[in-house]
Amino acid sequence: MKLLRVGSVGAERPALLDESGTLRDLSEIVPDIDGDLLGNAALLDRVRRAAADGALPALPRAAADAGTTGAGAEPESLRIGPPVARIGKIVCIGLNYHDHARETGAAVPEEPIVFLKAPDTVVGPHDTVLIPRGSTKTDWEVELAVVIGRTARYLETEEEALAAVAGYTVANDVSEREFQIERGGQWDKGKNCETFSPLGPWLVTADEVPDPQALPLRLWVNGQVRQDGSTADQIFSVAHVVRYLSRFVTLRPGDVVCTGTPAGVAMGMAEPKPYLRDGDVVELEVAGLGRQRQVLKSA
Amino acid sequence: MKLLRVGSVGAERPALLDESGTLRDLSEIVPDIDGDLLGNAALLDRVRRAAADGALPALPRAAADAGTTGAGAEPESLRIGPPVARIGKIVCIGLNYHDHARETGAAVPEEPIVFLKAPDTVVGPHDTVLIPRGSTKTDWEVELAVVIGRTARYLETEEEALAAVAGYTVANDVSEREFQIERGGQWDKGKNCETFSPLGPWLVTADEVPDPQALPLRLWVNGQVRQDGSTADQIFSVAHVVRYLSRFVTLRPGDVVCTGTPAGVAMGMAEPKPYLRDGDVVELEVAGLGRQRQVLKSA
Repeated sequence: MKLLRVGSVGAERPALLDESGTLRDLSEIVPDIDGDLLGNAALLDRVRRAAADGALPALPRAAADAGTTGAGAEPESLRIGPPVARIGKIVCIGLNYHDHARETGAAVPEEPIVFLKAPDTVVGPHDTVLIPRGSTKTDWEVELAVVIGRTARYLETEEEALAAVAGYTVANDVSEREFQIERGGQWDKGKNCETFSPLGPWLVTADEVPDPQALPLRLWVNGQVRQDGSTADQIFSVAHVVRYLSRFVTLRPGDVVCTGTPAGVAMGMAEPKPYLRDGDVVELEVAGLGRQRQVLKSA
Repeated sequence: MKLLRVGSVGAERPALLDESGTLRDLSEIVPDIDGDLLGNAALLDRVRRAAADGALPALPRAAADAGTTGAGAEPESLRIGPPVARIGKIVCIGLNYHDHARETGAAVPEEPIVFLKAPDTVVGPHDTVLIPRGSTKTDWEVELAVVIGRTARYLETEEEALAAVAGYTVANDVSEREFQIERGGQWDKGKNCETFSPLGPWLVTADEVPDPQALPLRLWVNGQVRQDGSTADQIFSVAHVVRYLSRFVTLRPGDVVCTGTPAGVAMGMAEPKPYLRDGDVVELEVAGLGRQRQVLKSA
């Protein structure tokens, strides 16, 4: 299933994008797409059955293009929000692609590098991204995001880790490189500016992603391709990352794990590095998970 | 006012500790102690007036000793929980005391070091703290925690910063030093283990803390004093920290800022460093803000 949330900021309703491309209203079946739903197999089954039965009312738009033709076309009531409400925490993996480690001149990490983004940095996939005041190095990062559906503590096996995954979505791990690296040593300072975590358009349930290590992912800036990678190049697989993290943090339904970005970020390019500026347009996609489009704007 | 939350985990009710030391039930006036309350001056005034009028029902315990005589004595229904519900994010400052920077051999930072703790690491002030599996370096950190009451973005002045503070409480920023420092470079990995953020017992509103830079803070392990400092020794004051952070993250009502720890952590001591073990008892206090007591237990 493709689960999403549509509506104005803070008033999104739960919805489903069905196989015919029609947007279906879930608000009579579930209050929202959140950890309570994702951790409740019976309720998810109820959604799945209602979709199969054709029992869900269509939302007033043929939404075959939801998230694929760019932002701004839909009426405000059909804005696409982040696909998960009440995210508990966002755990991110740094330098998790061989080609990205190479471009930044970093050694391949011996074990996952972990940092956090705060849930209130999350915006919808087509929402405006704000360039922080004083920023000169705002950068992009297309990522495969994992949404957790089962509490994960001290997992023994990678099978258990994959069983804890409710689904997958797209994230742009927007990063201010000066704040991240040149201003005191912990990356969080450059990862948590307002609007820095566009998420969505959809949460695709894990049953529809048979191999999370075979997903092409790409990103364009002003129409020019900048990142063109595959999760096959990840240093630590989704299963490895989730199992690993469960030794250091307790993952809970509704938490999000961002699994790192491939090569092609501004930081890794030749001078003058093309960091983002007011008016730039970033588009990104992970194959099968939909597409994002953000316009950059000075805060 | 001293605001707190009492009850079993996840079912705490809002309460007030009045000047006579009586615990008063707030649940008929406000649904909880959270960002919605702390950001609502009119509602806070209503609580204040009800307390002054003697209109609040007493909870069935003379609570003069709440949080000051240690854990375990109160019935489960009067367990003290974290003083803030639905914390949005916890932003922490590293190496913010001159004496702590010295003991760790670190240079005095030129600007605040920032990292995050996830809200689901928060427990009540007397709850058990779990030593992670595989941990050999679980350490303590008594801290002055700031609770935000007004959205803070790009604040111009330190006066605005202090106006954004709803109140103060005590935090134990429990830290696993191997995970934090020796396992891949970002501190978050050693800061976000389950139960690693005891908070409370009370939120003391900012009007009752005239000078946050004059607060003694102390911590004992098994009755032996380990930290004995003062917020006067902070490198960056509360006002400076809140104003500084507002350039990098948007602080919102119900967010918590942990302002760093003074000297005396296990990491800073001579070998063999006395890291925490199963059964150890940690007690900590910030003058005027109450006292915590945790028993350590292997996860």
